[in-house]
Order: sequence, then C-alpha cells, then structure tokens
Amino acid sequence: MKESAVAERQPAVQAARRIEIHQDGQIRGQVRAVVDAVLPEVDGGRFAAKAIVGRPYVVRAHCFADGHDRIRVRLQWQADEARNVHEVEMEPEGNDVWTASFTPPQIGRYAYTVTAWVDAFDSWRHDLARRDDIVDVRVALQVGALLVEEAADRARGDDRRDLKRWAATLARSATSELGLHALQAIADDADLVRIARRHPDRRHEARFGEERQLVVDPERAGFSSWYELFPRSASPEPGRHGTLRDVQALLPYVAGMGFDVLYLPPIHPIGRVNRKGRNNARVGADGDVGSPWAIGAAEGGHTEILPELGTLDDFRALVEAAREHGIQLALDIAFQCAPDHPWVKAHPQWFRHRPDGSVQYAENPPKKYQDIYPFDFETDDWRALWDALKGVFDHWIAQGVTIFRVDNPHTKAFPFWEWAIGEIKREHPDVLFLAEAFTRPKVMHRLAKLGYSQSYTYYTWRNSKAELIEYFTELAHGPGASYFRPNVWPNTPDILHERLQSGKRATFIARLVLAATLSSNYGVYGPAFELMEHQPREPGSEEYRDSEKYQLRRWDLAAARSLSALMSHVNAIRRTNPALQSNDSLAFVPVDNDQLIAYLKHVDGNAILTVVNLDPDRAQSGWVDLDLGLLGLDGQRPYVVHDLLDGQRYEWRGGRNYVLLRPEVSPAHILRIEGSGRTERDMERFQ
Amino acid sequence: MKESAVAERQPAVQAARRIEIHQDGQIRGQVRAVVDAVLPEVDGGRFAAKAIVGRPYVVRAHCFADGHDRIRVRLQWQADEARNVHEVEMEPEGNDVWTASFTPPQIGRYAYTVTAWVDAFDSWRHDLARRDDIVDVRVALQVGALLVEEAADRARGDDRRDLKRWAATLARSATSELGLHALQAIADDADLVRIARRHPDRRHEARFGEERQLVVDPERAGFSSWYELFPRSASPEPGRHGTLRDVQALLPYVAGMGFDVLYLPPIHPIGRVNRKGRNNARVGADGDVGSPWAIGAAEGGHTEILPELGTLDDFRALVEAAREHGIQLALDIAFQCAPDHPWVKAHPQWFRHRPDGSVQYAENPPKKYQDIYPFDFETDDWRALWDALKGVFDHWIAQGVTIFRVDNPHTKAFPFWEWAIGEIKREHPDVLFLAEAFTRPKVMHRLAKLGYSQSYTYYTWRNSKAELIEYFTELAHGPGASYFRPNVWPNTPDILHERLQSGKRATFIARLVLAATLSSNYGVYGPAFELMEHQPREPGSEEYRDSEKYQLRRWDLAAARSLSALMSHVNAIRRTNPALQSNDSLAFVPVDNDQLIAYLKHVDGNAILTVVNLDPDRAQSGWVDLDLGLLGLDGQRPYVVHDLLDGQRYEWRGGRNYVLLRPEVSPAHILRIEGSGRTERDMERFQ
Repeated sequence: MKESAVAERQPAVQAARRIEIHQDGQIRGQVRAVVDAVLPEVDGGRFAAKAIVGRPYVVRAHCFADGHDRIRVRLQWQADEARNVHEVEMEPEGNDVWTASFTPPQIGRYAYTVTAWVDAFDSWRHDLARRDDIVDVRVALQVGALLVEEAADRARGDDRRDLKRWAATLARSATSELGLHALQAIADDADLVRIARRHPDRRHEARFGEERQLVVDPERAGFSSWYELFPRSASPEPGRHGTLRDVQALLPYVAGMGFDVLYLPPIHPIGRVNRKGRNNARVGADGDVGSPWAIGAAEGGHTEILPELGTLDDFRALVEAAREHGIQLALDIAFQCAPDHPWVKAHPQWFRHRPDGSVQYAENPPKKYQDIYPFDFETDDWRALWDALKGVFDHWIAQGVTIFRVDNPHTKAFPFWEWAIGEIKREHPDVLFLAEAFTRPKVMHRLAKLGYSQSYTYYTWRNSKAELIEYFTELAHGPGASYFRPNVWPNTPDILHERLQSGKRATFIARLVLAATLSSNYGVYGPAFELMEHQPREPGSEEYRDSEKYQLRRWDLAAARSLSALMSHVNAIRRTNPALQSNDSLAFVPVDNDQLIAYLKHVDGNAILTVVNLDPDRAQSGWVDLDLGLLGLDGQRPYVVHDLLDGQRYEWRGGRNYVLLRPEVSPAHILRIEGSGRTERDMERFQ
Repeated sequence: MKESAVAERQPAVQAARRIEIHQDGQIRGQVRAVVDAVLPEVDGGRFAAKAIVGRPYVVRAHCFADGHDRIRVRLQWQADEARNVHEVEMEPEGNDVWTASFTPPQIGRYAYTVTAWVDAFDSWRHDLARRDDIVDVRVALQVGALLVEEAADRARGDDRRDLKRWAATLARSATSELGLHALQAIADDADLVRIARRHPDRRHEARFGEERQLVVDPERAGFSSWYELFPRSASPEPGRHGTLRDVQALLPYVAGMGFDVLYLPPIHPIGRVNRKGRNNARVGADGDVGSPWAIGAAEGGHTEILPELGTLDDFRALVEAAREHGIQLALDIAFQCAPDHPWVKAHPQWFRHRPDGSVQYAENPPKKYQDIYPFDFETDDWRALWDALKGVFDHWIAQGVTIFRVDNPHTKAFPFWEWAIGEIKREHPDVLFLAEAFTRPKVMHRLAKLGYSQSYTYYTWRNSKAELIEYFTELAHGPGASYFRPNVWPNTPDILHERLQSGKRATFIARLVLAATLSSNYGVYGPAFELMEHQPREPGSEEYRDSEKYQLRRWDLAAARSLSALMSHVNAIRRTNPALQSNDSLAFVPVDNDQLIAYLKHVDGNAILTVVNLDPDRAQSGWVDLDLGLLGLDGQRPYVVHDLLDGQRYEWRGGRNYVLLRPEVSPAHILRIEGSGRTERDMERFQ
C-alpha cells in the first residue's frame, strides 16, 4: 500500500443531496416525503436508459413518508430542449412502489425524475373515513374546511369559487345535527375530491436527488429486420464484380422478404499492400479482390467508394431507392487502415510506430494482421483523430445514411464512442448504431451504456433449450434490459455455427424462427442464409469456405432450396403482430420435453406463443403449460390458437395442451392465441 | 398531465463524468481504461456503506480497456479528515472483476474509489511471452528498452539506477545472438518486473466517476449481545420501585450471562395527564407508574431522570460501573411528549393543534393515544425542534452514553435522522444508533441508509425453516447487506410471539440459539426471556400480561427454570468463535428434514455449523450435506465436529453426515468443525 497525492473530491453525492432536502444552501427541514428510488436507472444516473418514440415508457419509484400520512407522487419528464416539465400522477402498486408511464412524443434526449409530498387533504380524507366518534368527525370537518379554504386560495376561477363553497359546506356541517355517516359522505363527495386534489399544497415536496437520462430512438431501434449482403456478389453475370446498381436491382428481392434494414459491408477502396487472398490466404494472387475491411488505397479511405462498386451518385440513388422500398441502408464502419490508406501518410502520428520507424500493424501475438493498421488512441493528436473519425459518420449521414453497424467497437477507446455517439445523436437523433462486439459481457454492456442503439449478442452460440431460456431471460429482464437492445443473428460472414454446418433445413428454419420471435431486432447474412450455405473453410472452423470476405460469389437466388418464401412469411408475421415488436413481455412457457422450447409474448391483447422443435432429426411432442390468467383467458371456455406459419387453427382448452412438431414438416409453430372475447376484438386491428 | 415551471437541472451526471474523462473542463481523450463499477455501492453513491474498524473491507471493481492490452487497477481509500490517499493494487478474479481489500485503522467516515490504466509495461511482457518469431522478439526488446528507460525517468535513487541498467541490458540483448527463449527470459526477470511495476506510466489513468462513502464503526456495531431490562423492576424488595442503583447491582448478573450492551427503556419523568393503567388500561388507578414512553412531567422531559429511579449521579455511576463489566449502556430515545411535558407549554409551535386550540394527540383512526403528543415536523420552527432533539442525544452522550435505541424512528421525519445522525457521528464517530422500526421493508432500509448503525428485524415472525432461510439469506447477501445491520430479538416488551406463548423450553432455547448464531448482533428482553415468561395479555395478543410497560414486576432471577446458564454459555461461544461475530459468511446447509435447519459460518479457519430442531415436541433427525471444499477439508480423511453446547465430539467422514436432535435434551448443536490439519491449527488461536 503506498501513499499518493490527495485525490480530488467528487461533488456528485453532495449534488445529489441538494435537491432532496437542500435548496439554495438551505436545508428544507419540513420535507417529510421520501423518493428512495426512481427506475429504470443505469449506474445511478451515470448513463441514459433507452426508449422508443410513441411507445409508453413505464417508470417506477419507491416513495413513502414517516408515520401514516398519505402521500402523492408525480413523475416529471422533460425533453432535453423543451421548456416545459410534464407531470404524471403516479399510482401505488403496493410495497411503497409507485408507477406511471409517459409516451415520448418525439425522438431525442429526455430526463425524468419523481416528486412526492405528504398530502394534507388525502390524509384528512383517509382518517375521516375511519373515524367512529361523531365528536371527532365534527372536529375533523372543521379541519377539512380550513384545508379546502387553503386549496381555494391556491386555485383560480371556477375551482376557487367551488372550493370556497365547499369550505363553507364543511364548516356548516361540522355544527349540523347530521349523523356520522352523513358527515363522512359529505367529505367524500367526488366533486370536492376531484377539484381539491387539483390544488395540493406542495410547499414541502421532495424531489429525487438525480435526474434519470433517457434516449428516445426511432421505432426501428426497437423493431428491425436486417439483411446483410456483399455488393461485390450482387452481379447477375458470372464473374463480373457487383455494383451498387446491382444492389439496387436486388431491392425488390430484399423488400419482398420483408427486411427493412439492408446492411452492406465496407464499400470503400481496398488496400493493395499485403492484400489477403481467397479463403484468407496470407498472400493474395493477382486479381484477388481482398477484404472490404482492409480499408483505404490510392483512391481514398473511409469517405470514398470502391470504384468497382460505382460512384457517390450511385450510392445516393441506392439510398433513395431503398427508402422507397421501406428499407434503410446500414453502412459498416471499421476504424482501421490498410497500409496504403491515405491517412497513414497524411497523419502518421495517428498510428504506433516500431523502433525501425515502420507503422505497427495489428497483432495479438503470436497472430499478426499485416494488412491492417490500428489507430493509436493514445496519440497526442487524439483530438484531430476523433474529429476525423466522427467526420466519417458525418460524411455518410450527409449522403442519407441513418444506420451504422460498427465493426469491433471494443478495440477502439471507449471515451471516443461516448463522445462521438453523443455528438452525432445531438445533431441527428434519428441515427442508430449497432455494436459488433462479440466479446466479454461487461465490455458489451459498456458499449450499450455509452450510446450504442443495438448490440450483437451470443445468440449464435446459444442452441440448447436451457441456454436459450437463460440467455433471453437475461436479455429481456436482466439489469441491462433498460439500455442493451439485442440484435440476434443466426449467421454472419464470420460465424457459420457448427449446427448450420450440418446443412439441415430444419435447423436453418428453427434458428430463423427463434431469432425472429425471441428478439424484436434480428438479422441474417444472405443470400448465404436462405440458400443454406453451410461448408466451413476447414473442419472446426466457423468461417465460410470461399467466403465473400475475400472473393466474389454468385448466388442462385431462384434456387428451389431457398428459404426466401418462409423468411417473407416470418417477417410478415412480425409486422402484423405487435407482440413480436418488443421483448419486454417475453415469458418462457413450460413444456415437458427438453427438445421443445415455448415462449409467449403479448402486447395490447396480441398474444403470440412460439413453440420450436430444437431436434432437426426427430418429431418431438409435449404438453405446453400456459398461464391463462396472464392472458385474461377463461380457463373454462375453449379458445383458438392460430398457427400463423401454416394457417392451421387448433381449439385448446385450459392451460395445458399438446403440441407435436415434425422437423420434416415444420420445426416451429408461431401460434396467435385467439378466441377469447377480449383477445378476439383486439385482434381485429391486426388482421 | 399538466405542465409546470421548468425543473432545476441536476448536475450529478455531468459531475460524475468529469473525473472519468474530463478534467479542468478538458476531455482527457487518451484515457483508454474503464472503471465501470465500484462495489459495494449504495444508491449510486448517495449513501455510505458500513464497515467495522480493524476488519478487512473488500472492494470489487469492474475494469477493462479496449483491445487486448493489459490494465492495472488500484483501489484508493482515504479517511475523511486524512490528507493521504492510500492505494492498494487490485487483482483480477475473472470476468473483468478486480478485487482488493483494506482495513480501516480507526472509526469515522472514509471514501474510496478505483483507478485503472492501460499498462504499457505489462502489455509488453504479456505479448513478448507469446511471440514465436525471433525477429519480432528482437524488435520487442528494443521497445521494452524504451519503456524501461521511461520508467527509470519516473524513478529515483536505486530504482532509477537499476532500471537504467535494465534498459541497457534489454537494448543490448535485442542485437545479441541469444535465442528466442533466452531473450524472453531476460524480459521476464523477476527483479526487472518488480522494480519496473513500481513506476508505471499513469498519465492516462481513468478514475471512477463517483467516490463511494464508507462509515467505519466500532466493533460493537457488528458484534453485540443486548440485554434489555426495566429499571423499575430491578428492586430486590417486593413492591419497591427499582432504582438505577438496583440496576447497578444487577450488572454482575448481566455480565455473567455474557451480554455487552445493557439497554434501558426510557428513564425520564413519566406524564401524569391521561396516564395509562396496568395492562394498558385507558385510565390508570392511583399509584400506577404509567408507561416510560409517555415522556415528560413537571419534573422535566427527555434530559431528566425519573426521581424514583435516582439522580444523574446515580446514572453516571451506572454507566461507569457497566463499563467496568465490559458493558455499554444503551438508552431508549422516544421523541414524543406526555401532555405535561415541559416542551408542550414552552414550545406549543412544535405540536399540531386542533381547531379548539387543544394539542393534537397521537392517533391512527379509529385508534387514539391521548397520553402522547407527537411532534409536528412540518412546523415552521423545525430548526429549533431539530436542535432540541439533537440536544437530547448530546446531553446523554455527555453523560457517557454511546448507544441509542431509537423508538419508532419511522414516525419522525427522515431528513431529520440523516442530519442528526450525520452531525452526531461527525462529532462522536463511536456513537451507535439502533432503529426500532418494525415497518415496511423499504422504510426500514431507508433508515439504515440514513445512518442507523443497526436495525431491528422481522426475525420474531420468521419461524419456519423456509422463512428463516429466505430472510437471513436476504439479510446476509441481499442488496442491503452493505448498509443494513440486523439486530435480532426472540422477544421484546411489545412482542411475545405466539410460539413463545406455548412456554415450551425447547422453543425458547431454539429461538435463542437461532438469534445468537444467525446474527452477530442479537438481544433479549429479560428477565422475561430467561424466565420463559409467556402469558399474553389476552388470547391472540402479542403483548405480555402484566407488562412492565405499565407496572412494576419482580423477577426471581434464581428460579430453577432460568435459562441464564445456557445464555452465558451461548454468549461465551460467540465471544470465542470469530465465525459468529459477522454474517458475511452465512451459508445454509442442506438437511433432508424440514424441521431441521443447518447453516455454516466460517472466518479465518474458524468454522461453525449450527443445526437447530424447529420442532419442540419431537426428536428430529436427518442428513446434513456439507461442502467440504468450501472448508478446505479433505473428503477422504475423517474430521471432528465439536458440539460447543454440550462438549461432545463426533467423528465425521465426507460431506454427508447424520444428526439427531431430541428437544427434551437439546434442540440445537453448535458444532465447531475441527480436525482437518488446516482448521485445527487455526483453531488453536481460539481455544
């Protein structure tokens, strides 16, 4: 243990206390109400929680006061730029937890907090109703008359007039000959209560010590279907390098499958120095096209387009055409440079150098990546580096891009992301960022806290029933649920999971349905996925053989084996069923078979029960245990479950029902629960 | 939803961010390490955690950096008044969690935080050890020479000289003919590593955004055995009102039972107006002594002593004599007034008034407590009220009192407690406060956060095996464990639980052993407890019949039925076994019988397994499943479990062993696990 200089002291705690019971340096000693917690919260207010525009956002607070007096509690929320603070009365749900919700009207940053006060009027009513001594009740009515008189003084117009009248009535009744219950009835008059509660005495209200920050994103941040393709393989002619115009020609195909985000790997000039060959060969052959992630060459860097793909005009046209198909384009941002990237010469100080003066290539000994130079975030010129990197986003935003998939953000300095995403969303709150960080849990969570709108997950490696239940329960209901938005992929250009290497159709379908129904955000790497591409580069590898990362491929989109029709169907089901457009309601449902997984999502009366057979080789059956109460279903009456995949309807009774899934027919049911009066009416909206 | 004026914005979040990557208004853009969490924490730093002087305090932090560089992490701690910040190197325990501990040398307030930096030297060593290319290794040695040179520039004296020499050695070796492993060995030299790590480059270190506050209390805050008695009943002569001198005469009895806190109900003058009679009769008879909690009469209020009990000199003598017996006196502070309390006349503004001008007595309609006036914490004169109430503590502290048991703190304004306890502990950090708040969980936790050193619990109402396991797991390991210190009581003057009303000896013993071994802080209300007093005031009541709260009692301390000998024994076991002096290590142990509960506590090789038969009527037996690994025991070798209650020793083998408890013999084992080499050696210290 050593001693060092005195640490700066941090004012957060004192600051947090100021508003609760201090104000302008004075203690507010008459404050009796307590706001003990305001949830959701992320690291005690250090980071923002996330919400979706137009969707109710539920806030809970732990509030109480000393003794048995009644309190009233209000949620206060405010858009960052707005002048006005909105207030919503919170209702008690027991155990000193109060709840309310608000619906953010537009995207952007918000703040919310909670205020509470001991309410003299409510306390008075509560006591009065319990008094059994006529003498006390008469006294209490006099007290009430004074309270209502004070409320009148706080009111204006009609309310003031009405309250004055009520005060007189109470005073009069106090001396009347009326009996106990008659007197109590007067004090409990609905008019009196409604009007008086509009003018509470809040002089001694308590406000929570911290504001909670909230980032409100566009709907697509919470509900999106991603399709990734390599423009280089988009050409219909064998051998010809695909172009952005070829991609544009594929838009009807992608939109037809129901995807609303089209994600392109890097489209920039590709380095020639140390260019990799096919199947990641250390040295490429002539004509090899190299890896799109080896960014930068004579033609330019992160703000240029690979000439073989086309021009900036072609790109703008693609963005525009995509929008007409209801598709947003997502660009891949990989902050690293090929040795011939213009920045390497222009800004050598942005890179580490070796003693011989050469630039330090990427390495993780003993592995070396000589085609890639990482940035040195410890450079004294970091300010210019940060500006240049942010400038890359700005450049593509100016071309109409609103979604960025960021490559390996966990290998760049974390403070940069907090700054860059914060700045960009301040200027363009509609822009979304997907973090491609397949790394340790706390690192992935940090990136989400720093501002990433969505995050890749471990889904690809969660295959057993137990793994899926544990992981998706954590994602939907764990501590990260308020800021970490999962985006789940059955495959990526880097990850061909062993299960898919079997090439079994039932496995591909099961993994697609799981992704599309467990998570409101999901994506596939196509056409490899729908064409069930499944050859690994070598046994035990998760890399694709002849991967598009290093060469052109040509895909037979019309192949009979294609899953594209099924994918269109699944995405249509997602679009028409709100339950599948968020994860908050995810609840796993017991099935007495380890090869069958079942889970329920329900929103506003739309209830979807998905059942998947995880065994691609054998039919599996079992009994599903539904909690009908949760669904507001009557256990006595039969109800209909409607398989949206094959259109079949089944009549179920009670909570426990039989399911059988034959992999060769379909490994999954996506069952909409219909037929209970309530549910059916609400259903019509979505049919 | 209504709109109101703009809310003041709260700077906590910005403040919290300042230190992490901002300093003097500048972003520290080169900071790459991240401190994501520092634990324990209470409400994001809003409140202090609690520790015991002289006991190691364990801190965990979540730390990492971008990429694969190595980081170093240090815990920084500081006594509030101290100039120096102490630093402790933290060690990784996996999953990006780092841990270290420090032992607070004295009582008082402390603060701690965590700092982390990307360590160039450690990263260099880590990479070098993995390189398999001799050329790279030579280059790396040149890099290392520069790093060590820089370390030398940060060092002084011998270290500087040694590092200069090492830098030269590394540079030389880089150009030598030595082979791969020889070169790696040089860079890994223990001397080089030790010295170089003493002089790290911390220019870009990250510090956590908030300081964690810590209150370090005297040992008795964490380990105490309380005995409550009514001085009024302390007289050995029938009918005579007990005195403080009588209490002094009882000190050998109390000390003999091994209690170290003697708690007295209020000793102040008792109101005569509306004085309650025996068994809480609405109207007392002449000569009734009234309730000690109806405080204040002509003779004075909270700073006076009831004349029948004696004088202030008697009181000081009692405090002194108690100290000589190793006992601290705890006073009961009940902030409420009898109608004839001097403050009622002197400070009418401290009380609520009814429309007829009379003072508002305590009530919870339809219940009325006309012998009690509560304070009005909303009075405009609150400042004077707060000062007067704090003055009560100050007065008794001046008489040598260091422990206060506060009556119903949850019926007084919470901000008052934070202020008063904060002020008092600033002046007298050794003073302890026990919160007598039998109320809702969040309210009890708030009081603990505000500064109460110990808290009463629901123990009295937790009787089944499942209830006890759930509740004590929460107390020992739940979110409140860092600030809520339980003090558990099998009985109090207000709570004679139905189970004890049976009067069964086995139940009294079981409840005592459970309290004394599950919780390091516990207490009993005696002599009612050891004499197994068990008559309720009426069926279904938890009040004692002929309660001392309203009348004098005389206790036959020498009665044959007395449990005092057993209590001495149990308290002696607690004193000689560190495992029973804290709750951090509490772990419940499986037993295949719902009437048997078993749990383990182990500290520094002292391991205590307690097994209790919850059935007072029948012998119960079962198999206990010990995790021997947890205890560092060898599953193959036999070991001895020593019942400290009856002195018997049993030889056990393996994890699964048989226990049988006959209530008529003893309902409990307190087994010290001995006999494994390691354990035995450590044991000797305590034998």
